[in-house]
Amino acid sequence: MEFFAEHEETLRRALAAIASREYWSPYPESPRAYSDDAPQDGEQAFQDRLGRQFELDQPSHGYSTGGESSPYGVALDVSYPVAAVDDLVAAAQAAMQDWGRATVEDRVGVCLEILDRLKGNSFEMAHAVMQTTGQAFLMAFQAGGPHALDRGLEAVAYAYSEMTRLPGGQMRWEKPQGKRDPLQVDKQWRIRPRGVAVTIGVSTFPTWNGYPGIFASLATGNPVIVKPHPGTILPLALFVATARTVLAEAGFDPNTVLLAVDTPEAPIAKELVMRPEVGMVDYTGGSSFGSWLEANVTHALVFTEKAGVNSVVVDSAEDLKGVFRNLSVSLTMYSGQMCTTPQNVYIPADGIRVGEEHATFDDVAGGLAAAIAGFLSDDQRAGDILGSIKSPEIAGRIADAAASGEVLLESREVTHPNFPAAEVRTPVIVQVAAANRDAYMREMFGPVIYVVATSGTEESLRLAKESAQQHGAITWLVYTTDEEVMESAIDAAVEAGVSVAFNLDGGLYVNQSAAFSDFHVTGANPAGNASLTDAAFVAGRFRVVGVRISA
Amino acid sequence: MEFFAEHEETLRRALAAIASREYWSPYPESPRAYSDDAPQDGEQAFQDRLGRQFELDQPSHGYSTGGESSPYGVALDVSYPVAAVDDLVAAAQAAMQDWGRATVEDRVGVCLEILDRLKGNSFEMAHAVMQTTGQAFLMAFQAGGPHALDRGLEAVAYAYSEMTRLPGGQMRWEKPQGKRDPLQVDKQWRIRPRGVAVTIGVSTFPTWNGYPGIFASLATGNPVIVKPHPGTILPLALFVATARTVLAEAGFDPNTVLLAVDTPEAPIAKELVMRPEVGMVDYTGGSSFGSWLEANVTHALVFTEKAGVNSVVVDSAEDLKGVFRNLSVSLTMYSGQMCTTPQNVYIPADGIRVGEEHATFDDVAGGLAAAIAGFLSDDQRAGDILGSIKSPEIAGRIADAAASGEVLLESREVTHPNFPAAEVRTPVIVQVAAANRDAYMREMFGPVIYVVATSGTEESLRLAKESAQQHGAITWLVYTTDEEVMESAIDAAVEAGVSVAFNLDGGLYVNQSAAFSDFHVTGANPAGNASLTDAAFVAGRFRVVGVRISA
Repeated sequence: MEFFAEHEETLRRALAAIASREYWSPYPESPRAYSDDAPQDGEQAFQDRLGRQFELDQPSHGYSTGGESSPYGVALDVSYPVAAVDDLVAAAQAAMQDWGRATVEDRVGVCLEILDRLKGNSFEMAHAVMQTTGQAFLMAFQAGGPHALDRGLEAVAYAYSEMTRLPGGQMRWEKPQGKRDPLQVDKQWRIRPRGVAVTIGVSTFPTWNGYPGIFASLATGNPVIVKPHPGTILPLALFVATARTVLAEAGFDPNTVLLAVDTPEAPIAKELVMRPEVGMVDYTGGSSFGSWLEANVTHALVFTEKAGVNSVVVDSAEDLKGVFRNLSVSLTMYSGQMCTTPQNVYIPADGIRVGEEHATFDDVAGGLAAAIAGFLSDDQRAGDILGSIKSPEIAGRIADAAASGEVLLESREVTHPNFPAAEVRTPVIVQVAAANRDAYMREMFGPVIYVVATSGTEESLRLAKESAQQHGAITWLVYTTDEEVMESAIDAAVEAGVSVAFNLDGGLYVNQSAAFSDFHVTGANPAGNASLTDAAFVAGRFRVVGVRISA
Repeated sequence: MEFFAEHEETLRRALAAIASREYWSPYPESPRAYSDDAPQDGEQAFQDRLGRQFELDQPSHGYSTGGESSPYGVALDVSYPVAAVDDLVAAAQAAMQDWGRATVEDRVGVCLEILDRLKGNSFEMAHAVMQTTGQAFLMAFQAGGPHALDRGLEAVAYAYSEMTRLPGGQMRWEKPQGKRDPLQVDKQWRIRPRGVAVTIGVSTFPTWNGYPGIFASLATGNPVIVKPHPGTILPLALFVATARTVLAEAGFDPNTVLLAVDTPEAPIAKELVMRPEVGMVDYTGGSSFGSWLEANVTHALVFTEKAGVNSVVVDSAEDLKGVFRNLSVSLTMYSGQMCTTPQNVYIPADGIRVGEEHATFDDVAGGLAAAIAGFLSDDQRAGDILGSIKSPEIAGRIADAAASGEVLLESREVTHPNFPAAEVRTPVIVQVAAANRDAYMREMFGPVIYVVATSGTEESLRLAKESAQQHGAITWLVYTTDEEVMESAIDAAVEAGVSVAFNLDGGLYVNQSAAFSDFHVTGANPAGNASLTDAAFVAGRFRVVGVRISA
């Protein structure tokens, strides 16, 4: 198969990377690494989508705009084909006949080609992600394009690795029988898909969170029905269009990948996932529906990435400048609308050791508030960092948070220089006592930061652990210069099932999770049951049928 | 760790075998391969257990015989410590503290040593399995001892393989930043257990079906609560005793492995599995409770091996003698009380091609019935092949089956020469029309064989597939000399998710599934959701916590 041969080197390097966990990516994250025309062409391609029907030659009985609107106030008005669940499932099942029987190389080749085509459309995708999610352009480009492709490729590599653990073709099995002739049997292993896969997309990072499950299912032989969040459709529709084109070129039924658009008023996710033909569901989004899926979809594998309360524990530091600089970015980028953004910052009420000095609680908390205020004081920079607010509930959350403690920094409404209709809000920073659990031990998705005064790092870690075990958590960031504290923090993180980073004070932010190296979500606390990407995320998506032939 | 070093070569060979799928076993299946004293010592050890309390230094508040009795009529009267679910779960959780933090090598070393100790007790285990399950001695020895140990070792090898896919220790991750200094982070990966594991044992093959889940959970850091079937306790109690001894010797809390005994009148499985501390459940047994587990235990991984309707499809053969000889054994051994025993034999009503000749339906069906009648005509041999009936419902099933069609061979009550109290029954063979689905498309566990007259092999395969998809199936055996039929049968088997064997006419029986090579259950039909053993069976039993330290 040509596609496989063409991309085999990329696959081999991805396989090496998931083993070594060293840095690697085949998709440049810098917009400058692309051709001179690419930015302009991509923006034009995006503009050409607006106000039109998004054509897909898949089953449909009309067009709908879903519930899509741009947080930047740009008129999108893209309408998508809509189809009955029955028709989608039937089309997917029909497509599975050929796709499920294709060779591993054929399927993986198609997946690698889809990723490569998407790479070529990274600017169009960036505008689609920016305008539907409210991310700033650079984040939309990176997280929506190359970093998402990295995650997709990583899943393909895991799928390939799992499917090729058995000998290909036929082999002879020979069991000695003492003086008698040995038993001889020829054996083959046939890989078969699990069933129809459903991906339920998230409104904020539709491709980054969507590609892993989509590509893991696709590579292992399952057709995928992609149901985007009704508020963020275009990015996954672009994926579906690209995938269908490549599938058709390779001679497969394009219905191997289908788009399922719904509206907030008439959601179809429950009907879709409860279909008995469904073999796996990948979900990213709020905890409530994710927990419903985990509890109710018992006929299929369910992979969830829900939400949580992420923590920063400040114990000690050589220098606070780097701490403030790093936290100013990680606490504010995309207005805290990342599932990896820290929410609670635990600081000992007695203060901390900084180098040879003592810093009071107010030095730390006040310093952090001042650093964030300064960092976001310029409206242009604030717009570039914060992006726009996607969720309509966020204004209420800011007010709610402000009422629950002492406000160290008020949320400010920023007028975006380029998009005056955008809702841009700097975060509110609220100081609360450790005992005021109701205030901070809940997820306040968006620009809300709690500074929690504790009796010391031991309590900080205990509270962070309690909150992770009860409400989920994906990331912890700990500042300490003390080896023993570091060991205790690692112990607590392992028990809490949370990834932990230490002393980030440069250009790496705790929100970032690098494909081929970092696992996103551990699957060991209520933040989700899946881990992007490990063998457990992939291995159950196909099944093996053994064939024995008397020799 | 000494245990790991001592058994590392065994582990390495097991890892090679699960990759090559070639025949291999470190546990001799022939009783003659053991020391001269082993048979006598093992039998004596078993006899010494009878009529006594089975001592285990685990939490308990008394002793109970459960519901154990010997199908051979031997008085067992072994009583086991019983404990409250609360106490068992608390003890397991306490044990997980150390066990979950142990190194991969330490844990795997302990597992390998447990397997090795069990190997040394294979004769005691054989008598325990024989007298609790009703198996004949040789089957009890092989399936209860070495073959079960193979399956346990296979699970340990998969667990080791999965846990060692990431770099051990700490590594440097370095991301280029153009002209600026690269981002540098030191990374570690910490493996943590998923939670308390519960194994719910089966009455027929307690160790063979139990070891895979037990060892997969144990090797990956989870404590295991072993709840045997109340009618078959001793084999798993022997395992628990051995495991606890080795754990204690290695300095671990012996409560890492616990025995949970209940009675048919007061079952504890539901209470146990619904505990939130439980992270995984392994179950082998009837479909009804297995399906309940799949539908209700949503907070834990659930691995089931339930039941099904296995099929033989007779299309054509070079010679019927080998067919009859092979089927006589596979259809009768242990009175069909194996989840891999064929139940339905599909034969075209128009007969089949045999070599250059034509054989009528009656030639085939009648020939099979005569072959089985002859094979079991001698009471001593019948006893050695059939063993004794474990399940009290089987007599009713035989009568029920006989009433549903034309009886080709009546079930005969055999007096076992060595155990006159044993219930030994030859199978009933009933001829039914393909249209009489209600009769044969249901699981009739035990000595019931249906011969189904079909319109041809196409219908045979269609019915076998329908029955697998609706009721589950683990094995198919197809006799054909036609390449195209073989391909159609493989296609049908892949769709039905059933392992398929062709033309077995020698000493290998379709009921047998060889560790390191064959997968037992595909997980792709209602016969169960697990596959022994693949990566999907193991990979989710532990989780990985990433640690990033700014470099």
